Amino acid sequence: MPDENCIFCKIIAGEIPSTRVFEDENCVAFNDLHPQAPAHILIIPRLHIDSLDKARFEDKETVGHLLLTAAEIARESGFAENGYRVVINTNSDGGQTVFHLHIHLLGGREFVFPPG
Amino acid sequence: MPDENCIFCKIIAGEIPSTRVFEDENCVAFNDLHPQAPAHILIIPRLHIDSLDKARFEDKETVGHLLLTAAEIARESGFAENGYRVVINTNSDGGQTVFHLHIHLLGGREFVFPPG
Repeated sequence: MPDENCIFCKIIAGEIPSTRVFEDENCVAFNDLHPQAPAHILIIPRLHIDSLDKARFEDKETVGHLLLTAAEIARESGFAENGYRVVINTNSDGGQTVFHLHIHLLGGREFVFPPG
Repeated sequence: MPDENCIFCKIIAGEIPSTRVFEDENCVAFNDLHPQAPAHILIIPRLHIDSLDKARFEDKETVGHLLLTAAEIARESGFAENGYRVVINTNSDGGQTVFHLHIHLLGGREFVFPPG
């Protein structure tokens, strides 16, 4: 069920515009509005899940699908070979600002450690 | 098949010591030797996969399991509610140094953006 207060559910529904780079029956991927790298894409499940902390055992394939989709987008975008970073922020310390599970896919530059 | 040159395969086999915090039939989790946060745990599949880029469609459940295991470890370690960051580095730009797929679970402090 979409959450009517969730901006990512509204992006999925097309009620808020976004630049989609990929979509399938399970997920939608679009450019981050505040990119932190030459490529900065968010991959979100169509199913509303608040956060990684709220994902359940039965969401295992869905969350796995998000990661494999990130890898596929990196290959299709041409930066997989050079490399990329995938990040999931959970709750306040993690820096999560939108409570609809999302994967940050960042590429096109070198990333340092620690990761924030 | 374990890769005989892979230090993470050796950690799984117990040939290289590590401080394990969790293990099951699919994965092993242990403390990072160079922690970047009060909690810094690596979660790796028992199956050798070079990187997220080399994961295949049939690895979907395995990679999903790694993420759900990270979330479970965060809850059991007591920092899930405050929050945490999950990071996967792929290839050179991403900062990948060991070529056995691994998830960094970082908690116990606030993480800034960009993530490296």
